Amino acid sequence: MAKRVIKVGILGLGIVGGGVAQLLMEQKERLSGRLGAELVLAKAADRDASLARELGLPAKICCNDAEQVVNDPDIDIVVELIGGLSPAKEFMLQAIENGKQVATANKALLAHHGVEILAAAKKAKVSLGFEASTGGGIPLIGSLREGLAANEVSQALGILNGTSNYILTQMTNRGQSFDEALAEAQAAGFAEADPTFDVEGIDASHKLAIITALVTGKQPRLEDIPVQGISRITPLDIKFANDFGYKIKLLALLRNQGGRVEARVHPALIPHDHVLASVDSNFNALHLTGDWVGDVLLYGQGAGRRATASAVVADVLSLARDILAGCSGRLPALGTETETSEPLELAPLEEAVCQYYFRFTAEDQPGVLASISHFLGDHGISIEAVTQKGIDNNAPVPVVMLTHQAKEAAVQKALAAIDNLPAIAQPTLVIRKAWTK
Amino acid sequence: MAKRVIKVGILGLGIVGGGVAQLLMEQKERLSGRLGAELVLAKAADRDASLARELGLPAKICCNDAEQVVNDPDIDIVVELIGGLSPAKEFMLQAIENGKQVATANKALLAHHGVEILAAAKKAKVSLGFEASTGGGIPLIGSLREGLAANEVSQALGILNGTSNYILTQMTNRGQSFDEALAEAQAAGFAEADPTFDVEGIDASHKLAIITALVTGKQPRLEDIPVQGISRITPLDIKFANDFGYKIKLLALLRNQGGRVEARVHPALIPHDHVLASVDSNFNALHLTGDWVGDVLLYGQGAGRRATASAVVADVLSLARDILAGCSGRLPALGTETETSEPLELAPLEEAVCQYYFRFTAEDQPGVLASISHFLGDHGISIEAVTQKGIDNNAPVPVVMLTHQAKEAAVQKALAAIDNLPAIAQPTLVIRKAWTK
Repeated sequence: MAKRVIKVGILGLGIVGGGVAQLLMEQKERLSGRLGAELVLAKAADRDASLARELGLPAKICCNDAEQVVNDPDIDIVVELIGGLSPAKEFMLQAIENGKQVATANKALLAHHGVEILAAAKKAKVSLGFEASTGGGIPLIGSLREGLAANEVSQALGILNGTSNYILTQMTNRGQSFDEALAEAQAAGFAEADPTFDVEGIDASHKLAIITALVTGKQPRLEDIPVQGISRITPLDIKFANDFGYKIKLLALLRNQGGRVEARVHPALIPHDHVLASVDSNFNALHLTGDWVGDVLLYGQGAGRRATASAVVADVLSLARDILAGCSGRLPALGTETETSEPLELAPLEEAVCQYYFRFTAEDQPGVLASISHFLGDHGISIEAVTQKGIDNNAPVPVVMLTHQAKEAAVQKALAAIDNLPAIAQPTLVIRKAWTK
Repeated sequence: MAKRVIKVGILGLGIVGGGVAQLLMEQKERLSGRLGAELVLAKAADRDASLARELGLPAKICCNDAEQVVNDPDIDIVVELIGGLSPAKEFMLQAIENGKQVATANKALLAHHGVEILAAAKKAKVSLGFEASTGGGIPLIGSLREGLAANEVSQALGILNGTSNYILTQMTNRGQSFDEALAEAQAAGFAEADPTFDVEGIDASHKLAIITALVTGKQPRLEDIPVQGISRITPLDIKFANDFGYKIKLLALLRNQGGRVEARVHPALIPHDHVLASVDSNFNALHLTGDWVGDVLLYGQGAGRRATASAVVADVLSLARDILAGCSGRLPALGTETETSEPLELAPLEEAVCQYYFRFTAEDQPGVLASISHFLGDHGISIEAVTQKGIDNNAPVPVVMLTHQAKEAAVQKALAAIDNLPAIAQPTLVIRKAWTK
């Protein structure tokens, strides 16, 4: 006879942990009905005891020590929502060693220490759920692990950071500066007081590392993923890009072709008629291309208490089904038994080929455009379009170019030379065009 | 020790069955690697022996009799791709009774006989995969069964028929008539010689029945779902709708609020800025609203050999994992143990409330607009916008109205009276506005 009660323990009662506790309590009947077994929030740990009180959790299930949860023999599923690397990692490994099924939203931990954690889960024959780590409530991990499992995914383009997408949307729709849009995002609760992690692409790179592992069965080293944020984008760039036929989005890009894997995060030009161009505000989306399924888009709220709790509890239900059916570890973490602890070697950025948008900031003096063009031509970079707008005072003027396909290595060399020109007032802004096929 | 070879048998080698056979053969290594076990196409049946030859299937695995597949004790997973109600139903029930795991793309069969088939699967403790039945390659069944399982889905809006969406897109973008766009869709392979099933909304209603069952845990009676197709839509309607701020799409609509469930298929107005308005060509999409996850969109190819095969093989992999882990029947077909064979009672269409678009076709004579307005007013239907364009000859002219919120029962009564007027030359065309919140 299968076990008819499943006991869940939560580590961390912050934004997401509090949401998960609330969902498990408020919808206990719904969730237990789906499962055909009683799903019980049996223990919750947070150093800050006031959080449990605010949530109205019964005192007898609360503690301030995560060890009491991971070492409790009655707990079946541990939900790690402490965030950050340490002590979250130690508690998670302890829970795995104790044979608990584990669900987490901790993208940083998986991106940094995924190899170690997945190996521990495999060894202990427990399942690891991380639907909430990437794309918030969007069921994209499950889709990659199972729904699209027949495919080789050749390409993925993701809008994976809601803060950056909200800021870029405000800049696009209302002509706000980055700073104005950021302040508004902070006021609306879509950005942290220190927004670096979100607006500089770091958060998106963690999520891209996870998606890359799911697509290839191997985990990349986080430091191998080139990252560029959006803080240098101006309303002028958005306007020029628009004139060229594009929107600017912070993209996570993955290309997986013939064993060669490219992965990077940067602001990118997306043609207006591409379905990702209409993903606005704080929404996230992942656009995948599989060799059998063709193009798929998965879209929804990529963050927030309720959407993230939805994903965590989906994992909890799935882990609970495994326990009830006596098949824990049924699905490998990366959805493939070929997964390996050998790291994925990414192709270096220097080898990348795409179209480029450059915004040069030049003193308004004769010959600058000629010098720029000269250096680009010398490196084999040809121009598709150029826009220069003189301004009536003597301030430096933007010169904007869209190139044909060019090689990153050549672009970096040409820009080093150009940015060294006395007439160039600021480092040149680079925006790469997204591959759209 | 778990079983290390999984044997698959296919019933039907038509478009989809042929695609599945091809995928299983061409990608045997990939699929077996994912599974950690050998996945073998062990038997394939089709009455037409030439299909197996064209696919290059080894003669020893081919037969012309489905019974040889469903009764073969070596077969672990039966893939039913015959389509239609009979004999597909009998073969599927036989396979289930024989303890085979079953995958199918047969939406008609599930929509008509789902209660019986699900009960048989439950009794035999086998799993039923039907990812390919709805939304082709889009992982939407899996998302509803597991990825969004923590939610009560309050609303679903689906573009679920690629043929109709292709035709409406061509009519919208190129001003083609329905007949012109249909002919082009037929030439492009996106429409059957007899397109009734697709363009009159029947196919979409089968898919909506399946989605409704997944959302509510109860199966609706197919005949309770009101269905209206797109064959009476004209480029003029598309233009008028555009002027009012909307696109016209064939939608499957589901609303699930407080135990009251509405489900119907009809052409619908969607605001230009709604994400479904940008789902064009032969793409499908499902827009869901859950109480925790918020809005989610799942988008991709809803039909076609390769995309549908992708979904069928995703099911095969999932069923194979259950066999390998010794947990067949782990997930109930509707994703909930509360599923019941008691049919779902849908709210009658007459109780529906929404905004309406009417195109009246009236003789160009004085007083017609007054008569129409009189009947609408009498039934409590108020007008948000009206457009009348006189035409220089004496032909009947279209009078187009957009109403405020109105009740379907009142609309039907008013239109019965209006269509009875001598000056009304054709039955009035009705397009309902989609709920967007």
